[in-house]
Amino acid sequence: MSGNQAPMRERAKAFFEDLQDRICAEIERLDGKQKFREDRWEYAPSGEASLRSGGGGGITRVIAEGAVFEKGGVNTSAVAGRLPEKMAQRMKVGEGDFFACGISLVLHPRSPHVPTVHMNMRYLEVQPDDGSPLDGWFGGGADLTPYYLNRDDAKHFHQALKQACDAHDPEHYPRFKQWCDEYFVVKHRGEARGVGGIFFDYLRGNLEGDFPFVQDAGNAFLAAYPPIVERRMHDAYDDAQRQWQLVRRGRYVEFNLVYDRGTLFGLETKGRIESILMSLPPHVSWVYDHQPEPGSPEAELVAVLREPVAWV
Amino acid sequence: MSGNQAPMRERAKAFFEDLQDRICAEIERLDGKQKFREDRWEYAPSGEASLRSGGGGGITRVIAEGAVFEKGGVNTSAVAGRLPEKMAQRMKVGEGDFFACGISLVLHPRSPHVPTVHMNMRYLEVQPDDGSPLDGWFGGGADLTPYYLNRDDAKHFHQALKQACDAHDPEHYPRFKQWCDEYFVVKHRGEARGVGGIFFDYLRGNLEGDFPFVQDAGNAFLAAYPPIVERRMHDAYDDAQRQWQLVRRGRYVEFNLVYDRGTLFGLETKGRIESILMSLPPHVSWVYDHQPEPGSPEAELVAVLREPVAWV
Repeated sequence: MSGNQAPMRERAKAFFEDLQDRICAEIERLDGKQKFREDRWEYAPSGEASLRSGGGGGITRVIAEGAVFEKGGVNTSAVAGRLPEKMAQRMKVGEGDFFACGISLVLHPRSPHVPTVHMNMRYLEVQPDDGSPLDGWFGGGADLTPYYLNRDDAKHFHQALKQACDAHDPEHYPRFKQWCDEYFVVKHRGEARGVGGIFFDYLRGNLEGDFPFVQDAGNAFLAAYPPIVERRMHDAYDDAQRQWQLVRRGRYVEFNLVYDRGTLFGLETKGRIESILMSLPPHVSWVYDHQPEPGSPEAELVAVLREPVAWV
Repeated sequence: MSGNQAPMRERAKAFFEDLQDRICAEIERLDGKQKFREDRWEYAPSGEASLRSGGGGGITRVIAEGAVFEKGGVNTSAVAGRLPEKMAQRMKVGEGDFFACGISLVLHPRSPHVPTVHMNMRYLEVQPDDGSPLDGWFGGGADLTPYYLNRDDAKHFHQALKQACDAHDPEHYPRFKQWCDEYFVVKHRGEARGVGGIFFDYLRGNLEGDFPFVQDAGNAFLAAYPPIVERRMHDAYDDAQRQWQLVRRGRYVEFNLVYDRGTLFGLETKGRIESILMSLPPHVSWVYDHQPEPGSPEAELVAVLREPVAWV
């Protein structure tokens, strides 16, 4: 490693912002109608968090009412502050100051034939109050949430992520695929959020070795998702299929608000609410006791969500 | 008190089920089009909870696609099982077996001029493992969530609840009104869920004295809410007002899934998911950075939600 390199927090932030630019350009190309609206914001934590070292901000980019994307956000942020006690316990780190930067995206297509997608890559640092050394780690993940199951799409998505993983460590993909299957679960429904992908956290101890993996995994989004959009975006759908999508989006909301660590981290660290909750779908329905008809394509999806599949 | 009286758990359950009947009849009368669908279910907790004493069930009644009510549920349940450790800590009681019975209702009217309403009354018992005496208490509350502020409606709702409180203890209403203002807060938005009402919990130590209050507070729903529905249900509204309602319903979902104890209790004790989540609105929108126009009726509502009002 060269001693001249910038600190990891700067290099990670620069990578995430560059990736944001490239992904937004590709999403605008796919959409063909709408452009992202950009909001730059400053992090101004209230109370305890503002006492020291608090600051930073983010670049929120949201697309809405597009031809392909009904709503989507591709956000970056880099913030520092006091780590809330609750978060420190959950992360199993000492109390102290934190720095967090990352990219987070969720895209909700208009057509029920095009899956919703999520991707997040992040770098965190905690400087414990007790004087122990700076603790830094990467985390991230990407997962696909179809409304109708298309096995080729699921395979393609997993294959692209696997390739990025395999270039660094043959154990990454199997481990991170399983972690994803375990993480993105709507526990009270006994269902996965979608067909999975990868999820990893607390990748620490070898930051210089892990950063290239995180870069490849982030870049893999562009190979994993846009081809699926292009395959499905022109497929016709009817009102019943749209209604199914709206009901399934309710499950997405349930996961994000009840279980998602990133969302809870954002709410608890008093992040910018509109940037955090850009992940919520534009239109959602909750229908009491909605059950897909046995043997239907809707029932086929739910069956797959109840039991993780080895896609590749 | 007569030694011949049935145990509180039986009397409470009987009261809640009778109240459910009376409320459903009144809601059907108001709606004029749809009737409640009833689902009776049995509580079959999995894992640890099923080891001892688990059982019971509930009566879920849901109305949908009505003339006045787009979706609503008026549920009762009476279940027993093992108290999850997390819940015991939150309730500050010892680990042990629990019994819980109650009535819970949420009504989502179709018109943005008719407020959403919630009411819950419950009786809980915990039998700690350490042999200490049975611990029983009442809890409950009722709150009103308008989409457009009507001060007379808010006053009427509070007045009806205050009357039920005042008949038992002059300190009840001020205390429970404040508790409500503090409880029904969408913290990350810095907004109350609505114009409040009453909220109370851990009413213990004098069950025979508190039960009549809980009965009066439950019965007060029929004086508090239906007259507001009758006043507003014929008011005309346009698409923009409907859109505002859908966005505000998103805040309702955010509160219920992120903060509401009753919802979390249900999810964590593996209650019947469809009965717990009947509280979620039928159609909801999340619009990025939605801000009401300054000086508009929408902005007037939000201003009131940011600062609790002494309605009576």
